[in-house]
Amino acid sequence: MIHGSSAKIQAAGGLRTLAFDAGTPLHLSNGETLSPLTMAFESYGALNAERSNAVLVCHGLTGDQFVAGPNPVTGRPAWWPRIVGPGRPIDTNRFYVLCANALGGSMGSTGPASQAPDGKPYGLRFAPVNVADIVRAQSMLIEALDIESLFMVIGAGFGGMQALQWASAYPKRVFACATVASGARQTAPALALSELSRQAIMADPDWRGGSYLAHGVRPTKGLSVARTAAQIGSLAEPALRSAFAAAAAKERFALASQLDEASKTSAFVDRFDANSFLYLSRAADGFDLAADFGGNLANAFARAATRHCVFAFSSDWRCPPEEGRRLARALLAAGADAAFIEINSDKGHDAHLEEETQFEASLTGFVDASAAIRGLSLQAGAN
Amino acid sequence: MIHGSSAKIQAAGGLRTLAFDAGTPLHLSNGETLSPLTMAFESYGALNAERSNAVLVCHGLTGDQFVAGPNPVTGRPAWWPRIVGPGRPIDTNRFYVLCANALGGSMGSTGPASQAPDGKPYGLRFAPVNVADIVRAQSMLIEALDIESLFMVIGAGFGGMQALQWASAYPKRVFACATVASGARQTAPALALSELSRQAIMADPDWRGGSYLAHGVRPTKGLSVARTAAQIGSLAEPALRSAFAAAAAKERFALASQLDEASKTSAFVDRFDANSFLYLSRAADGFDLAADFGGNLANAFARAATRHCVFAFSSDWRCPPEEGRRLARALLAAGADAAFIEINSDKGHDAHLEEETQFEASLTGFVDASAAIRGLSLQAGAN
Repeated sequence: MIHGSSAKIQAAGGLRTLAFDAGTPLHLSNGETLSPLTMAFESYGALNAERSNAVLVCHGLTGDQFVAGPNPVTGRPAWWPRIVGPGRPIDTNRFYVLCANALGGSMGSTGPASQAPDGKPYGLRFAPVNVADIVRAQSMLIEALDIESLFMVIGAGFGGMQALQWASAYPKRVFACATVASGARQTAPALALSELSRQAIMADPDWRGGSYLAHGVRPTKGLSVARTAAQIGSLAEPALRSAFAAAAAKERFALASQLDEASKTSAFVDRFDANSFLYLSRAADGFDLAADFGGNLANAFARAATRHCVFAFSSDWRCPPEEGRRLARALLAAGADAAFIEINSDKGHDAHLEEETQFEASLTGFVDASAAIRGLSLQAGAN
Repeated sequence: MIHGSSAKIQAAGGLRTLAFDAGTPLHLSNGETLSPLTMAFESYGALNAERSNAVLVCHGLTGDQFVAGPNPVTGRPAWWPRIVGPGRPIDTNRFYVLCANALGGSMGSTGPASQAPDGKPYGLRFAPVNVADIVRAQSMLIEALDIESLFMVIGAGFGGMQALQWASAYPKRVFACATVASGARQTAPALALSELSRQAIMADPDWRGGSYLAHGVRPTKGLSVARTAAQIGSLAEPALRSAFAAAAAKERFALASQLDEASKTSAFVDRFDANSFLYLSRAADGFDLAADFGGNLANAFARAATRHCVFAFSSDWRCPPEEGRRLARALLAAGADAAFIEINSDKGHDAHLEEETQFEASLTGFVDASAAIRGLSLQAGAN
């Protein structure tokens, strides 16, 4: 299954990884190269004989590759079980679903917590990576798995930015693209949440200028602010206001403990590397596809045949529907086959993770119609 | 000038204060009383013979009473010189302009840094105060100054919430109300910025559980995150994105130093009490006039004769124009004389502080028309 001789699949500690040696470096947007490169990934379902039914799911900022099954390292359950699985909109009985831990992440792919060639963790010596680099690393993985083109790329939030970058950078290798609760650039509220999270991490004395791993400590207070920021940005405005009212009624100044009660299972501060958060959030904040194309977003998708569907949720203030409409206008201006779907929901940004039957139904329709146009058989072939 | 015997004006360290003794306690919304109460205030212009030309300016979350002249304690210049001053929209040649340091603040009014009756700073023993309490304390000050009714109340952001609370709680004492870049409730992005600021303050080891004053330290790292949050929330989205791009180009993770270069004069961490930030931001976050009136915002203004003008700035994502429109709809539904003005500006929430000629012209018009209706003479009388 592995294309070329330089990459090998390994499995250790429950993580499946593909390692690229010095002969296959990753070329970064800033001109540097990164080597060796390890990409951790998970897959669900089977590749058909034509190798044409692969769906790449791009995870969010603090997510991981375990989209449809439990994470063997942290024990957390699948993070998108309503969308990916047998009989779900992205049906693992039909599709070969791949999800890779993002470059710069901390669930097996090369990132700031990885060993640099000198044997010590990279820490802040890790190169600055952007969304194009993250997608380029995914592309190396897909190529090494001998998959010439993807039936679909899909992602929400930060994952949606990656899906768009795929469609823009590799239009011939992406048949369909689904962008969920995301857009072609970071919004102001999201920038604000990221910035304050980074500042809180860096203000934590246990961050130690980024070298906490060498000191055997972790900036858990700062990470816990970052986690709260993610939770806050995911709630709809009325839910956020209720949470504040409930905290204030207890004469509390901060929501943290209020939200804790609702999410005791999320041991974010234990599972996520603080420097990874700095690198990945900066990549998200720097994403601006229009700026990469002379200020005209339509140019990012010129002459592309990829089919697009853009989903937004009415109560998502972190990435409001207007960002999705802006993207859809640009896609249509570029001549793409593109639809924009606004789902009426009171669940905020998190609506993409929760039960939203209209979202699931319209995504299913987009997937099925795309499969029919692509001529994909209903059953995955043997592999 | 002082009404009754219990309040006396004092001047010390450049601050003018009015002290209420135990005979005149402040009755708080939570049922407690606060005593003694000191209200620090500044005034500009002269009260006319009819005592009918008083304008109360309510300052923002991290502001002070020095709206039209330098702060003698910090040396900072007037914070709203374009709006309040001789020949400005709120003309101090015509109006007697008052601004009081908010209850819970740290520029002379009673707050968590003040001495409690036991001689030690209140710290977190200070009672939880809300916007109604802050306005009730202002009302005691106005009454003690023997001013029966205000010609106008005006405020921006948190100050705008106080202006609305005035109009709702004391409709017969407010002839005109100008709400700027604000609304009848806190928005989700503002809630998020507040919460993360509070968490950063409380996560700073120098906060010492709120008792930093007794330890001779101050949570400057946490306060500096709070200051950045305020700056971020004040910028328009394109300016924010440029600031991030500039920081990222220097391979910086955080905007802080980037913004510092633009605001070296703002020694926020030195001038503002951290616990005051916790108390006042919680008051702002808890403000929801509709909720106080059974969910119907119009009921907050029932049977009121106050004239209203609601100003919003197109690029203000911290308090978007939609909040102003929502307020204006409720005012009109309540039968009030109300106008909504959206100013097209690229300066974000900060537009209210910067040169915006359309804002200044329309505010001048509202002030002048209101003065004409009220029958105010063009010249302030002797006092």
